[in-house]
Amino acid sequence: MIFTAQIKVMPLKNLLDPQGKAVMGGLVNLGLTGVNDVRIGKYIELTIEAENETIAKEKAEEAAKKLLANAVMEMYEIQIGQ
Amino acid sequence: MIFTAQIKVMPLKNLLDPQGKAVMGGLVNLGLTGVNDVRIGKYIELTIEAENETIAKEKAEEAAKKLLANAVMEMYEIQIGQ
Repeated sequence: MIFTAQIKVMPLKNLLDPQGKAVMGGLVNLGLTGVNDVRIGKYIELTIEAENETIAKEKAEEAAKKLLANAVMEMYEIQIGQ
Repeated sequence: MIFTAQIKVMPLKNLLDPQGKAVMGGLVNLGLTGVNDVRIGKYIELTIEAENETIAKEKAEEAAKKLLANAVMEMYEIQIGQ
């Protein structure tokens, strides 16, 4: 079966997010007010072929842990769909 | 009121995603099988101060259109929460 794993990788809450700060500055320069904070992360969609949802989730977890997220400064969330 | 806008920016479906292809190669090198496709985008969280949800969504749309997404090669989705 084919599953889709949606993985969200975000910088940890208590760490600085320089990319977010830069975008924040850009928004102010554009005259867009009312935005108090910007945080930027990655969004990854994996198409996984697996026997069932549990195995698909394990594969997505392994991919996130080994390659996609750096646990020292990022957190990740995985959602599995079909 | 404070709203959170979650903006997902992804490369258009019919365009190549070189970053995704690179990650795909990395997963194969790690010995992780069963992943057929990888697509990588950005995930942006804006904290917006606005009178109501409609205004917050308008601000998020404006930010996405003017700064966060490149309409020629990317699509975006916005979700507003509190």
